[in-house]
Amino acid sequence: MKPEQYVYPFEEGNMSMKSLLGGKGAGLAEMASIGLPVPPGFTVTTEACNMYLKEHKNLWSELKEEILENLSLLEEKTGKRFGEKPPLLISVRSGAVISMPGMMDTILNLGLNPTTVEYLADQAGDRRFALDCYRRFIQMFADVVLKVGSHHFENVLTAARKEKKVHSDAELEETDLEKIAERFLKIVRKETGSDFPLDPQEQLFLAVEAVFKSWNTDRAVVYRQANRIPDNLGTAVNVQAMVYGNLGNDSGTGVAFTRNPSTGEPLIYGEYLLNAQGEDVVAGIRTPRDLSDLDKDMPEVYKQFLEACQKLEKHYLDMQDIEFTIEQGKLYMLQTRTGKRTAAAAVRVAVDMVREGLIDRPRALQRIEPDQLDQLLHWRIDPDVKKNVITKGLPASPGAASGKVVFDADRAQEMAQEGEKILLVRPETTPDDIHGIIAAQGILTSRGGMTSHAAVVARGMGKPCVSGCEDLRIDLSKGRFYVKGEEYQEGIILSIDGGTGQVILGDVPLIEPQFSDEFHQLLGWADDFKKLKVRANADNPEDARRAVELGAQGIGLCRTEHMFMAADRVPLVQKMILASNLEERERALADLLPLQQGDFKGIFKEMAGLPVTIRLLDPPLHEFLPDREELLVEVDRLQREGGDAKLLQEKENLLQKVNSLTEFNPMLGHRGCRLGLVYPEIYRMQVRAIFLAVFELLEEGIPAADLQPEIMIPLVGHREEMELMKKLVDDTAEEIFKEKNQKITYLAGTMIELPRACMVADQLAEIASFFSFGTNDLTQTTLGYSRDDAEGKFLPFYLQKKILRANPFAEIDRDGVGQLVEMAIAKGRQSRPGLKVGVCGEHGGDPASIKFFHDTGLDYVSCSPFRLPIARLAAARVAL
Amino acid sequence: MKPEQYVYPFEEGNMSMKSLLGGKGAGLAEMASIGLPVPPGFTVTTEACNMYLKEHKNLWSELKEEILENLSLLEEKTGKRFGEKPPLLISVRSGAVISMPGMMDTILNLGLNPTTVEYLADQAGDRRFALDCYRRFIQMFADVVLKVGSHHFENVLTAARKEKKVHSDAELEETDLEKIAERFLKIVRKETGSDFPLDPQEQLFLAVEAVFKSWNTDRAVVYRQANRIPDNLGTAVNVQAMVYGNLGNDSGTGVAFTRNPSTGEPLIYGEYLLNAQGEDVVAGIRTPRDLSDLDKDMPEVYKQFLEACQKLEKHYLDMQDIEFTIEQGKLYMLQTRTGKRTAAAAVRVAVDMVREGLIDRPRALQRIEPDQLDQLLHWRIDPDVKKNVITKGLPASPGAASGKVVFDADRAQEMAQEGEKILLVRPETTPDDIHGIIAAQGILTSRGGMTSHAAVVARGMGKPCVSGCEDLRIDLSKGRFYVKGEEYQEGIILSIDGGTGQVILGDVPLIEPQFSDEFHQLLGWADDFKKLKVRANADNPEDARRAVELGAQGIGLCRTEHMFMAADRVPLVQKMILASNLEERERALADLLPLQQGDFKGIFKEMAGLPVTIRLLDPPLHEFLPDREELLVEVDRLQREGGDAKLLQEKENLLQKVNSLTEFNPMLGHRGCRLGLVYPEIYRMQVRAIFLAVFELLEEGIPAADLQPEIMIPLVGHREEMELMKKLVDDTAEEIFKEKNQKITYLAGTMIELPRACMVADQLAEIASFFSFGTNDLTQTTLGYSRDDAEGKFLPFYLQKKILRANPFAEIDRDGVGQLVEMAIAKGRQSRPGLKVGVCGEHGGDPASIKFFHDTGLDYVSCSPFRLPIARLAAARVAL
Repeated sequence: MKPEQYVYPFEEGNMSMKSLLGGKGAGLAEMASIGLPVPPGFTVTTEACNMYLKEHKNLWSELKEEILENLSLLEEKTGKRFGEKPPLLISVRSGAVISMPGMMDTILNLGLNPTTVEYLADQAGDRRFALDCYRRFIQMFADVVLKVGSHHFENVLTAARKEKKVHSDAELEETDLEKIAERFLKIVRKETGSDFPLDPQEQLFLAVEAVFKSWNTDRAVVYRQANRIPDNLGTAVNVQAMVYGNLGNDSGTGVAFTRNPSTGEPLIYGEYLLNAQGEDVVAGIRTPRDLSDLDKDMPEVYKQFLEACQKLEKHYLDMQDIEFTIEQGKLYMLQTRTGKRTAAAAVRVAVDMVREGLIDRPRALQRIEPDQLDQLLHWRIDPDVKKNVITKGLPASPGAASGKVVFDADRAQEMAQEGEKILLVRPETTPDDIHGIIAAQGILTSRGGMTSHAAVVARGMGKPCVSGCEDLRIDLSKGRFYVKGEEYQEGIILSIDGGTGQVILGDVPLIEPQFSDEFHQLLGWADDFKKLKVRANADNPEDARRAVELGAQGIGLCRTEHMFMAADRVPLVQKMILASNLEERERALADLLPLQQGDFKGIFKEMAGLPVTIRLLDPPLHEFLPDREELLVEVDRLQREGGDAKLLQEKENLLQKVNSLTEFNPMLGHRGCRLGLVYPEIYRMQVRAIFLAVFELLEEGIPAADLQPEIMIPLVGHREEMELMKKLVDDTAEEIFKEKNQKITYLAGTMIELPRACMVADQLAEIASFFSFGTNDLTQTTLGYSRDDAEGKFLPFYLQKKILRANPFAEIDRDGVGQLVEMAIAKGRQSRPGLKVGVCGEHGGDPASIKFFHDTGLDYVSCSPFRLPIARLAAARVAL
Repeated sequence: MKPEQYVYPFEEGNMSMKSLLGGKGAGLAEMASIGLPVPPGFTVTTEACNMYLKEHKNLWSELKEEILENLSLLEEKTGKRFGEKPPLLISVRSGAVISMPGMMDTILNLGLNPTTVEYLADQAGDRRFALDCYRRFIQMFADVVLKVGSHHFENVLTAARKEKKVHSDAELEETDLEKIAERFLKIVRKETGSDFPLDPQEQLFLAVEAVFKSWNTDRAVVYRQANRIPDNLGTAVNVQAMVYGNLGNDSGTGVAFTRNPSTGEPLIYGEYLLNAQGEDVVAGIRTPRDLSDLDKDMPEVYKQFLEACQKLEKHYLDMQDIEFTIEQGKLYMLQTRTGKRTAAAAVRVAVDMVREGLIDRPRALQRIEPDQLDQLLHWRIDPDVKKNVITKGLPASPGAASGKVVFDADRAQEMAQEGEKILLVRPETTPDDIHGIIAAQGILTSRGGMTSHAAVVARGMGKPCVSGCEDLRIDLSKGRFYVKGEEYQEGIILSIDGGTGQVILGDVPLIEPQFSDEFHQLLGWADDFKKLKVRANADNPEDARRAVELGAQGIGLCRTEHMFMAADRVPLVQKMILASNLEERERALADLLPLQQGDFKGIFKEMAGLPVTIRLLDPPLHEFLPDREELLVEVDRLQREGGDAKLLQEKENLLQKVNSLTEFNPMLGHRGCRLGLVYPEIYRMQVRAIFLAVFELLEEGIPAADLQPEIMIPLVGHREEMELMKKLVDDTAEEIFKEKNQKITYLAGTMIELPRACMVADQLAEIASFFSFGTNDLTQTTLGYSRDDAEGKFLPFYLQKKILRANPFAEIDRDGVGQLVEMAIAKGRQSRPGLKVGVCGEHGGDPASIKFFHDTGLDYVSCSPFRLPIARLAAARVAL
C-alpha cells in the first residue's frame, strides 16, 4: 500500500505520529503545535526510508518532489531562499522511533557553497562567521555523507593553527578560513574522485539518502540486535531551518533538563554558551556556564525559557531533556525528549510529580524500570571514574568492593580486626572459609559458578562476589596470583564489581546505597497495587530484619544449610556426617539442635505476624567436608614422605569417607528429601528445633497467631517421598505438642524443583499444603544445564549466538520451565483447590519473570532481601 | 455378604475356582473331574480363611459343621471312619491361589491316636508301619500346629538310633517306635504345658486353624510384599484321605515332569521310590530311581501313569509337575501343577507344543517371560554350584566371567596374548584402558556407576562388568586389593556375575549361551505378531553383524564417541581437544575423518537394507582426557621433588586444560549438540564421514535404497539448536552431493532426552524428521537422579523401602517420564503427522517398558544386541 504522504511539515505532525516521524520529528512537531518557538521544518517519514531501503534504493521522483514542495513552504515561512538570497540554510538530522547510536546524526548549515556563503556573510554582517559555517559544513558533510574521514580535515586545521601560532580554531582569521575551505574542497576531490556537491538541492538529496542508509550501518544493526529493536522500523529525516547561536553575544546555545537528572531535584538544570553553536557546548573547548547565569545575561529570554520548560513538562508529564538556541535575542527550542536519569532521580521525579498533581500513582510506578532500582540497593562503582579492568569473572553477587587481596580466611579475619579492608581471593571457598567471608568486603574466586559456595553465601550476606574467574591463577604457596601472564602479590589492592563480574586493579570510589523517603513512598504505592505477595529468602535474623525493612511479606525460603555452614557449626556437622552409627550421629545432632533452635527463634521473632517457610536440609553432605582433591594431594604427600603415621591414617580415613560421599553429578545426587529419607534423624532434629523455637516465643508472650511456620520438603519427585516426609513432620510436631500440652498451627509443603514433581503435582498436592517452585533447580533439570558449568562455558556463547534469547537462570524460560510451572499449578489446584503457590528461585526477583508469575496465578514470589524493592515494583507494574 | 458354602468336595470344584479353592485344591478337583484317580477329599475355601482372619478369629460353628458334613461324605466314599475302624486318616494341606513359601505345608496321617494306630496296624497288617505313621504324625503336628521345634524330636530319634546302633530310622523296630511315640507325647506336654490332642476332630480343627494362621507368618507377609501379592487373597485348606506308598513293595511314591524341565525334551522325567512316603523321595536318605524303571517294577501302573500324564498335558496344555503315590498296586494322583522350567526348556516346550498342535503360536509366545531369555544370551554361572561371594558391586553388564586379576591394561593385554584368562580390575577405567578391556574376560571397578566408562564400554562389547564395587580398595602401587579388611594379591582368580553384581573368589563353572533352533523359531513367530519394530544399539561392524543375526530391524543408536574411544584414536582425539586454535583442531579432525568413515562404512555394509541412526558426538570432551585427580597428584609430586622441568610444564599445561574442561555436573554440562554448536567442525567432520562412507558403498555397488543414514542430534532442548544443527547437516551433505554429483536420501532428527525437549516437541518436530527418546538421560533429568550416583547410593534404599516401585533406569517411570514421552509424541505428531518415533535408552530392552512404548504408539524400540530376543518377544506379547 502506497502512503499518501512522505513528508510532513512540523505543523502537521504531533506526538502520536512517532512511528511515522521518529522521536525527534514528532517532538519538534509537538513543540510547534503547542506554540513553542521552533525553527520551521519538515520530516521525511520512516515509511519513505523503508521504501528506499527495500524497493527503490534511490530517491524516487515523487519523494523528491514532495521534499522540494516542503522546501518551498519553508522558504515562505522563513522569508529566505534555498541557494539564493537571503540564504535559507538547513540542518538534516536522522530521527528513529527509538533513539539509537551508530546512525547518522546531524549535518548543519546545509545549502552553503561559494555563492551562498557570501549571502550569509552579508546577512549576518560577519564574513568570518559565514566562512566558519562553510568549512564546518564541508567537513561534516564530507564525513557523514561522502565518508571522507574527519582526520583529513583536522590535519588541515592543525597545520593552520601551527602556521598562525594560535591555539584554537576561533583564533583563525577570515582569510585563513577562506583558504581552509578551499583546501577542504580539494581533499574531498582527492579522496572521493569527484567534486564536492555545490548544488544545495543535490546536497539535500544526498544528505537524505545518507540518513536512510545509516539505518543499516553495522553498528546500528548490532545495536538493534542487542536491544531487540525490530529491523523494519526505519528512520525519519528531519530538515529544519538553521538558527545560529554564534551570531554575537546576544546569541547562544544550551542544553537543559527540567529537573536534576542525577538527584531528581525539581530545579532546571543545564548549561549554555553565548555566541556558540550546539556542538561547542559538548566539545569542551569553552567551559559552558550554569543555566542560572542566563538570568543575568538575558533575563527576558531566561524567563521565556523557564516558561517553555514548564509548558513542556506539563505537556509531556515527564522530565524533559531540551536543546535550545538563542539567535540575536530570540529563543528557539530545537529538541525535547524524555530526559535520561539516574535511578535516584527517577524515583524522586516520579514521586514529586505525583505530589505536584502532574501524574497519578500508577503512572509513577510505570515510570521506573524495576531493575534500575538495583543501583540504589548496593554499593557501586562511581560510573564517572576510569577503571583498570584486568579481567572478568561471573557476576555472582551484586555490589562493589575494594580491599587488600588475602588468600587465607584466618589472615583475612585478623587483618579485618585491625581495621583493614580485605578482599578474600580463593580458588574456591568452603564452609571452613566462612569467617574470612564475613571479614571481607567482597569475595573473588577462580573456580565455581553462580551457585558455588562463595556465590551462594555472598548473596545471602549481600556481599559482592565475583566467582569462576578463570583467568585468575592463584599460587597459594608463593603468595602470588597471575592474570593473563601478569604477576601480582598478595596484599595489593583490587576492586570487584559483583554486578558485572569486573576485576579492577587498585581502589575505586564507591557510591553508597540510597534509601530516600521518595523510595519508600514509591514502594508503598507499589504495594497498594500489586496482587502478588513478595517474600524474601533469608537464613538468619539479620537478613530477616533487613527483609522486613525492605517490605517483605514473609520469608519464602529459609535455607537451613546456611546455618550448618557457620564456622562454629561445621565441626559439629562434620562429626554428624562422619558418625559411624546412628547413635553417634544422634549425639552430634543433639549438639546442633539448640543452635538451630536459636536461629529459628531469632528469625520467627523478627518475622512475627508473617509466615516463614523453612526448607529442611538440602545440599549433599559432602559439601560440608574438606575438599577431596586437597585431601588426595595431602595423603599422597604423607604416603611418600613417611612421617606421622597417625596423621596419615586419619587423613586416609577421612579421604575414604569423602570418597564414599563424592558424587559425579552432585546436583542430581543424594540431597534434598533423599537425605531426609535415608537419615530421618537429621530432619527430625530440624523439625524439632523449629517447633521448640516457636514454643520459646510463645512462652515469651508472642501470640500464637503471629507464629506461622511453613515447613518445606526439598527435591520431592514421588508421592511416596512426600508421604513419608509429611509423616515425619507431623509425628515430630505431635511429639512436641504432647510435651508442651499445646498445639500450634503449621503447614507442611514441598518445593517443586523437578520436572517429575510437575508431572505428578496432582498426587503431591493431595499431601502437601503448599508448593514453592524452586525455579533454579527446575531450570537446571528441565533444560539439562548445570548452572555452575553452563554460566562459565556454553551459556555466554548461546546468548551471543541468540540460541537463547535470555539467560534462563535470570529470566524464566517460559516455553520449557514456564509450561511445567503452569501444568503443575493446574494439577496441584485440581487436587487441592486454592493451593498456596509461590516461587523461591532467583527468578522471584526478576521483573520479566514476575510478569509470568503474576499471569500464571502464583500467590507470592520470594527473592533475596536486596531484590525486594525491585520485586515489589515489578509486581505492581504487572498488576496495572 | 455371606457365602453359601465354605467347603467343597473335590468333585464339586474345578480349575476355574482357583481363587476360592486355591491352586492345589482347584487342581485336585480338576483332576478328579477328568477322571484321574485322586484320593477323595474336600477343600475349605479362601473365603473361610479370610473370615477367620478378619472376623471370627476362631473356627465358628457353621464352618465346623460344614467340615464335619464333608468328613462324613469322605467316610462314605472311602468306606472308612474317622477315629473308628477301619480308620480314615487324612492329610491337611494349605493351598493359596499363588504358591507361596513360608506357609504351613502338610500334615499327614491326621486322625491317629493310641486307639486308631492299632486299627491302622490291623488294617495294614503291619504294626511297625502304623507306629511309624503315628510318630511321624505327632512330630509333624507338633511342629506345624503346636510350634514345638522339630529338633526336640530329632534328638529322641538320634538317641534311639545310637542306643540301637543303627544308622536309619527305618532300622528301628516296632518296640522302639512305640517308646518313641510315648517320648514324643511327653515332649509335647513339657513344651506346651498341655497334652497332645488325641481327639481326631480336635486335631482336624486345630490343623485347619493353623493353616489359616500361617497366611500371616512373617515370612509369608514379606514374600507377598516382595512379590506384590495382595494380602487379602487368603489360603484354602485341602483335606484328603491318606493313601500309602509305604505299604510294601507293591506301593511307592514319586514325582514327575511331563517333559524334561531342564532341556524341554518331550519325555517323562521323574523319579520314584518303592515302599516309601512322599517325603522320602525328597529327603535323600534313599536314592530315588529313574521313573522309566517303573516300567519294569509295575508295567501296568507305569502305563496307567503315562496315560494320566498325557491326559493332564492335553487338559492343561502345558508341561505338568506331578506327584503320585501307588498304594498296593493302585495309582493315585496327588498333585498336578504347571512345571517350573529353565529358559531353554521353556522355549523347547512352547515350540514343541505348537508343532504337536497342542497350543497356537500366540499362546506359545505368552508362555515365556521375555526376561527369562536373558539366561540363554550370556555366559552364566552354573546355578547348582556353591559360590564364595566376597562382595557385591553394581550389575553393570550381564554375563559371568572368571580370570586372573590384573590392575593394568598393558599387562592384561600381554597376559591375554599368552593365553591367560584375565579379569581387569581398576578403580575406574578411561579410554586409555580400552585394549585392556578388550583383552579381559570381564571388568571389575571400585568406582563408577551403570553409566561409567567401564559399564558403557562393556555393555557395548557384551562383556561382563561389575562396577562401583565400593568394598573394593585397590592399592595399585603395592599390587594388592582389599575387600572388607581381607587382603588379596593381584594375580589371584576372581569371578564376577555382571547380572547380579556378585564378586566371587576363585573359578566357577560357566554355562555357555544357547541359541537353539526352537529359540530362532519362537522369535520368528514373535516377529510375525509384534507391531513395534526392534532395532539395536551398535557402534561397530561386529556389533552390527550380531544385531542382524539376532533379528535387528535397523540400528537405533550408533554412538560415535565409542569410535573416539578406541585406543588408536584417543591420541588424535586428545590432539583435537588440546588444539589451541581452529586450524590445529581441524588438522586433528582431518586425521580422524578416514577412521570414522571406515567405521561407518563397515556398519552400513552390515546393515544394508536397514536404517542406521547415527548420533553425533555426545559426551563432554574431558571424558577423553587423562584423569584430573591423577594429574593433580602427579603435578604436586613433580613440583615438590623438582627434577624434570619440561615434564612439569607439560603436565601443568595439561592440568590447566583439564581444569578448564572439568565440570561440576558433567551430565548437565557441555555435551551433546552444545559441543556441535561451539565446535561445529567436529560435527561437520562426522557428517562428512557418514556421507563419504555411503558413497564408498555406492561405488562398490550397494544400491542407494539400501543405504539409509539417519543422523541424530543429541541433547536438543531449544528449537534454535535444532535449526542450526539441521543446517549444518544439510549444508555438509549438499557439499558432498556436489562433489559427487549425486544426491542420496537421509534423515536428520533429534534425540529427545530433556524435559524441555518434550515441552517444545511441537517446535522441534517442525525441523526434525524423527524423534528418538533417550530415556536414560530423560529419566536422569526428569527425576533429578544422577544414575552413576543414585544406583550405588540412595536408589537401593528407595527400592527397599518401596519409595520406588521399580528402578526407573530399568523400567520406565510411567507417571513422570512416561507422561513426558506421551506429551512429546502428541506434540511432535501435531506438527509433523506420522513423525517416526523410537526409543534408544536401555528401556528399549525392558519388557515392562516395551508394553508402555507399544501402548504409546512408538514406531520402534532400540536396545543392545543381547537384549534383542527379549525385546522381540516382549513386543510380540504386548501386541497379542
